[in-house]
This record gives sequence, C-alpha cells and structure tokens, in this order.
Amino acid sequence: MTAMKVDLPRRLVAEALGTALLLAVVVGSGIMGERLADGNDAIALLGNTIATGAALVVLILVFGPLSGAHFNPAVTLAFWLRRELTRGDAACYLVAQLAGGLIGVMAAHAMFGEPLLVEGVKARTGAGQWLGEFVATFALLAAILGCLRTRPEAVPYAVGLIITAGYWFTSSTSFANPAVTVARSFTDTFAGIAPAHAPAFIAAELAGAVAATLLFRWLESNAASQAVPPAGQDAP
Amino acid sequence: MTAMKVDLPRRLVAEALGTALLLAVVVGSGIMGERLADGNDAIALLGNTIATGAALVVLILVFGPLSGAHFNPAVTLAFWLRRELTRGDAACYLVAQLAGGLIGVMAAHAMFGEPLLVEGVKARTGAGQWLGEFVATFALLAAILGCLRTRPEAVPYAVGLIITAGYWFTSSTSFANPAVTVARSFTDTFAGIAPAHAPAFIAAELAGAVAATLLFRWLESNAASQAVPPAGQDAP
Amino acid sequence: MTAMKVDLPRRLVAEALGTALLLAVVVGSGIMGERLADGNDAIALLGNTIATGAALVVLILVFGPLSGAHFNPAVTLAFWLRRELTRGDAACYLVAQLAGGLIGVMAAHAMFGEPLLVEGVKARTGAGQWLGEFVATFALLAAILGCLRTRPEAVPYAVGLIITAGYWFTSSTSFANPAVTVARSFTDTFAGIAPAHAPAFIAAELAGAVAATLLFRWLESNAASQAVPPAGQDAP
Amino acid sequence: MTAMKVDLPRRLVAEALGTALLLAVVVGSGIMGERLADGNDAIALLGNTIATGAALVVLILVFGPLSGAHFNPAVTLAFWLRRELTRGDAACYLVAQLAGGLIGVMAAHAMFGEPLLVEGVKARTGAGQWLGEFVATFALLAAILGCLRTRPEAVPYAVGLIITAGYWFTSSTSFANPAVTVARSFTDTFAGIAPAHAPAFIAAELAGAVAATLLFRWLESNAASQAVPPAGQDAP
Repeated sequence: MTAMKVDLPRRLVAEALGTALLLAVVVGSGIMGERLADGNDAIALLGNTIATGAALVVLILVFGPLSGAHFNPAVTLAFWLRRELTRGDAACYLVAQLAGGLIGVMAAHAMFGEPLLVEGVKARTGAGQWLGEFVATFALLAAILGCLRTRPEAVPYAVGLIITAGYWFTSSTSFANPAVTVARSFTDTFAGIAPAHAPAFIAAELAGAVAATLLFRWLESNAASQAVPPAGQDAP
Repeated sequence: MTAMKVDLPRRLVAEALGTALLLAVVVGSGIMGERLADGNDAIALLGNTIATGAALVVLILVFGPLSGAHFNPAVTLAFWLRRELTRGDAACYLVAQLAGGLIGVMAAHAMFGEPLLVEGVKARTGAGQWLGEFVATFALLAAILGCLRTRPEAVPYAVGLIITAGYWFTSSTSFANPAVTVARSFTDTFAGIAPAHAPAFIAAELAGAVAATLLFRWLESNAASQAVPPAGQDAP
Repeated sequence: MTAMKVDLPRRLVAEALGTALLLAVVVGSGIMGERLADGNDAIALLGNTIATGAALVVLILVFGPLSGAHFNPAVTLAFWLRRELTRGDAACYLVAQLAGGLIGVMAAHAMFGEPLLVEGVKARTGAGQWLGEFVATFALLAAILGCLRTRPEAVPYAVGLIITAGYWFTSSTSFANPAVTVARSFTDTFAGIAPAHAPAFIAAELAGAVAATLLFRWLESNAASQAVPPAGQDAP
Repeated sequence: MTAMKVDLPRRLVAEALGTALLLAVVVGSGIMGERLADGNDAIALLGNTIATGAALVVLILVFGPLSGAHFNPAVTLAFWLRRELTRGDAACYLVAQLAGGLIGVMAAHAMFGEPLLVEGVKARTGAGQWLGEFVATFALLAAILGCLRTRPEAVPYAVGLIITAGYWFTSSTSFANPAVTVARSFTDTFAGIAPAHAPAFIAAELAGAVAATLLFRWLESNAASQAVPPAGQDAP
C-alpha cells in the first residue's frame, strides 16, 4: 500500500492531512455551491461534485506513495481484511482519519466565516439511503481493488471518478466513508448530516466495503495465477 | 478481450455486476438530476452525463481485465463478428447483460424509493432519434476498436468520453446499448423509454455496431502489417 | 504524423469521417443545449463545451494513428510548414475536411429534424472576436506542437482540453478551425455563423496557426539537440 | 525542472507566454461566464472553473519541458527554496510572470471589448479569505511537490485538478498565485480584485507555499533513500 517504506508518524500525518483537505473540499465546496446557486440544488451539487472528484484524484496522487491515501476507515478495514495492514496500524489510521476529518471541517468553516464545529441538522435516513451508502462504498472498494491488481497507477483517477458518479447516482450522495460521515455530522451546511443518522450510514458503508472485499477475493482467485496478460487484450 | 484467463462463471458475474452498476448510475443520476433541477432539463442532463461518463471509465477499468467489460450486446456482437468471442460465450454474455441491467434499474429504484420495475412512458421515436442511435453506437464502437489496436489502455477513458459527448450531441441521448435500452424501458423516470419504442432503438444500435466493425476492418486492413509505429508520430 | 503507413484513401476517409463526427458533435450538442436550457446560454454552452471537448479526445485517439487526426486545415497548414506533409497530401486533406464538415452538419440536422443545410445567421464579427480566433488557434497549435516533441501520447487530451477552455475564454468561442468555420456557416442553430463573417474568422485562424508554428520552431531550436530529458525534471 | 537544457531567454518567453495565456483564460472565461449566466454566479463560476482547470493542464504540458511551467512566483519561490533554481533565475522568472500576467489581462479585455487595463473593484478581504489563499497555495504546492518525486508526468493533471477544486472549496476562489493576484487587480470583471486587497492575498499565498515546501521536505526525508517502490503498492 505504501510505495516507499515510510515510518508510521509520517504515514499518520499524511492520512490526517489528506483527510483534512478532503473534508475542507467537501464541506467548503458545499458552502460555496449553496451560497452561489440561488436555491438550485442541482447547480450547487454540480460544484460540490466537481470539486470533490478533482481533489480526490490529487490527494491520492500526493499521499498515496506516503500512507496509501486511505482517508477512509472503510478502505482501511478492507486492507486489514486483506492482511496488508496490521491491526495496530489500522487503529492508528482510524484515529488519524477521524482527527483529520474534524480539522478539515473546522478549516472549511473558518474559511467561510462559520462557527468552527456545529451539530448537523440535515436528515439523511431511511432504507433507500442506507442502500445508497452500501452501493456507494461497494463501488468505491470495487474501483480500488479492481484497479489495484492490473493497473494501480489508475487508482487515483478511478476513485475521483466513482465518487463523482456517486454524488449523483446514489440517493445518499455517496458519503462512502465513516470518517467523512462523522466529520459531516459537525456541520449544518450543504454537506451536513444529523448526528443521529450517522451510525446507520456508517454501518451500511462498512457492510459495502466487506462485501466488495469478499467478492473481489472470489473474482480474482481464479485469475491469480495468470501473471502476464495477453497483448492487446486489456479492454472491452 | 480478457486480460487474464478467467473462467466463464466469473466473467459472467463481472458482466452482470458491471451492467447492473451502469444501469444504477444511468437511472439513479437521472432521478437525482430531475428531482434537484427544478424543471431545467439541461441541468438534469448535465448531472446525468457527468455521472454516467465517470462511472463508465471506472467500470471498464475494474471489469475489463475480468470479462472485457462489454456491458453491451452491441459490443459483444462486434467482438463475435471479429471472432474474438465464441457464439456460446456471446449468448451467455447477452443473458448476463440483460439480467444485470434489470438488477441495476431495481437498485436505482430502491435507492430512491420508487417501485422496483415499472413500464417506461417517455416517447423516444422517429427517424431522427433512430439515426441518433445509429451514430451513437457507431461512435462507441469506433472509440473501442480505434483504440484497441494501438492504445488499449485508453479504452476506458475513450468509452466514458464518447458517451459523455453522446448524451448531448445525439437527439436520442445515446443509449447505444440494447441491454441499456431494455432496462430503461422498465423505468418511468428521467432515463426511461416507452417499451414500444425500444425495438427500433435496438435495431439502430446493432446496425451502427456492424457498420463500425466493417469500416474499421477495412481501415485497418492496410495498416495491419505495420507492427511498429515510427517514433514520435502518434499524434496530429 | 501517421503512426502506421496507411495509404492515402484510407487516410482521407479517416480525416473526412473524423471531421464529420466532430461537426455532428459541435452542432448537435449546440442544438440540444439550446433546446433544453430554457434560454440560459451559459448552461447551453456548458453542454456544448463538455460534448465537444470529450469527443475531440476520442476522435484523435481513434483517427490519430490512421491520418494524424487533423480535422482542421489550420493544423494541416502547420504540418505542411513543418514539411511533415506534402503539398499534394495537404490539398487532399483540405478537401476531405471540408466535405466531412458538411456531412457532419447534415447528420446533426437530420438527427434533430432540422433542414439539412441552411445559411447561418448568427453575427460573429469585430476585432475582438478576430483576436479571439487568433488566440484560440494559436493556443490549439501550441497544445499540439508543444506536446508532440516530448509527450505525443498526451496530444488527444491536450487538444480536447484547450478547446474546452477556448469555448469559454475567447470571445469567439474558439472555432479555431477553417473547416469548422465553413461548416458552421451552414446552420442557423446555436453553433452557427453568418457566411459573410466566416472569411475573417478563417484569416485569423490561419494567422494564429502560422504564428504558433514559427514561435515553437524558435522555442525548440535551442532544445532540439537535447534528446534525453534528465530524469524527474519534466514538470514544474 | 526543465526537461531539456533550454537557454534563459527561451525559458523566460515560455514563462511569460504561459502566464499570459493563463490570465487570458482566467479573466476571459470570467467575463464570458458573467455575461451569459443571467446573474447566476454559480453557473458563471462553473464555466470559469472548467476553462481554467482545462487550460492549466495544457499550459503545463506545453511549457513544462521548456521553463518548468511555474507561471507563479509562489512556485518559483518553492523551487528556489529547494535549490533547484538560482536566485538570479528566480528573479527573472518573477519579472516574466508579472509581465505575462498583465499581457494576458489585456488580451482578455481586448477580446471582449473592455478597456485594456482598469482598476479592480471587487472586495476580497478578511481572515477567512486569507486562510483560503493559504490553504489554496498550500494545496497547489502539495500537488506539485507530492507528484514530482514519484510520478512527475502527473503534475500537469494534478495542478489543473487542484485549481478546479480550489475555485469551489476556498472562500477566496483560489488565486493561489501572486502574479495572478497582481494581474487580476487590473480588471473590474468577474475575476477582479481591488488592488488594496491584493497584498494580503499575496502574503497568504507565499506563506502557504513555504509551509508546503517545509512539510514535504519533512514528509519525504524519511522516504528519500527508498528508490524503487515495491510493485503494485502505489495506491490506496
């Protein structure tokens, strides 16, 4: 997961900083969209989407070689299930992601003159949205695990693009990340979520991550012994 | 077409799952766009376009090495015509794609609290739209076949981009896929099509795929013996 | 320019077909944008922009290895000035591009139920717009020539992106292509131009292409003898 | 930083021309957005964003191999701090960037029929916006420095994407560039800034660049001795 042997403190700073910047983008662009869009939520969501997708690509390009650029406990869980991360390191990652997420929300609020941390009020609940979070996180892990074996250099782009799609195709707008879900429960702006609705989102996200991890383990179990793809046969 | 020798069951699961996710994105983002856009169909179509194009890139990156990532009977037809797929495998692909498409529509409907499968009502008919489907599928196959010989790693991006363009430049908004056409006849939301209008769409799509396959066979017949491109001469 | 030795007839078919698809996209997405956007020209232009930029990337990926994917007499002029194309081939390219452009406009009109060819009526004139065309074509050629020496595989993306930008930053919305200018004088839809205003656009485009060709000849004259870039020094 | 040994005059022309085109895009697309968007600033900002992000990718692809494609005194400062640029060359870069920026604003104004240089009037001030500029420039340098070591070919895309995000997630819309800030104080259009508010922006930008340079020096100090990344471990 880490392209170079980086020591744990630096990896945790990378995780925390990357997650902070991710949340600053998610919350900040939500505020900007809402303020400028004159009440048209589709236009606000377009700005929110473009900013989030673009930033994710960059953050993974930048921090991937340092910490693996998880920024997401569901991703960390998947890599722990794949035994690519020890339980201790996974726990440290989780703390760094949660702390980074809160710092990012505070940064967004400070930039836009909002109180630093407030309770979310936006209702996001119901079976439809929980299915949305399951599908969103399943698709996110599919993007990561599906690219990782045969074209790891595409992972940053795949993650940015699947979240771009997720903001529009899932009824929950694709949080797909427990650290993001916790952090977004501390804002009452466009991207917020009521704290009482966060636990069900997180449960659906973790379930989606586990399902994708198991499915790709099976899908790739058959292919594992085939190291070299035949030339010119990589695509549809 | 498959980057590693994957057995048929896994390839079919990949085809079905990829087509399901594609339809979840097409239908889901259409619902989201329509609900948020306050009646401005251009803004709804923007969201629908961005989500579909982005997701297609990811789905082909992820499932290309497993099944070839057709998700589309017109693409499967073209590869059967090129003798890169047996008739039996092509038939299995078709079933997986149709089943996956329906599952995807149901997933989108479930996420957004709509009845799981309903009859489409949106009229999409007439010579102009049939020409649109012919052109859209011709362009899709041109994107695939044109990249496949000299830069197969670009296929996922080319497919996402040509459908992005197709949503706007064809009068039919570029279904370009018989499995997608069938599936979209089971929704009465933004992306739907009346079932009675589906067969003509499908005929136009298959005709476009055959035309592109034949044209690229001719275009490349002359070049086939030239294995190594001269250095630095790849681009305009 | 051609990645494989392709005979002239096939190269001309590639040029004509690529230019036809380009015009179908430019004119078709303009019509779609105008019809859906409820009079908000910025939203119509967004759809027009996204479709054009996305399609250009694909068309150059697909036809680049066959004909060089000029689709544009200003590009053909630049390659003739660089002695990478004979005068006879350049003349044939010009004819193919002009014919392809008209076919593409007719295809767009047929898809959307408009008369096949009509006279443009949109006034596009004045020194500001001529400067716009000069700058747009200068930037287009800079994108092509600047990438060609050190990263030719990026040309398709660079061209799609510079036209994406050009639709918004030039007052003339970046025709940047004499064949496109001629073809767009045969439509009275969103993308049209009054025929009387076309010659000045074309003159400005050719001047921009010549200026970029000469400037890059000078910029690269100093670097030409340095074949191998030092590792890791490719970027800002 | 320069991919080929290019002499100083050519490097300065590349810096000035690239910065001029960048400003033509930023200011020109702002004017276009404002004129077309019927008072909806979110739509105007979308056009402004797409044009700027797309053009940045192209300009860095084109001029990166010649001058390093800084276009930005904050980037030049960072490379001087990293001892990859002499103080004399850095000073010359600064002059070229400032001159190019003014030329670009004049070009945009000339294209759109505005007076060539006017005093900016848009108020952009306050601690929130200063933090915005600090974060924006920190993120820009993180994008550059984070990619440079392990995937320098991604820098043009990373820069275009981080500015795309920055236009939406920072309260200041991510000038992130002292030369751009000075140039934008000479326009009273969408992209303008009142000259009295420019110095604080510039100070925040330089502070963000220094902070990122120091942080990445520390982050990478541990990894520096690891030349070859383990296979398949590049991504999350």
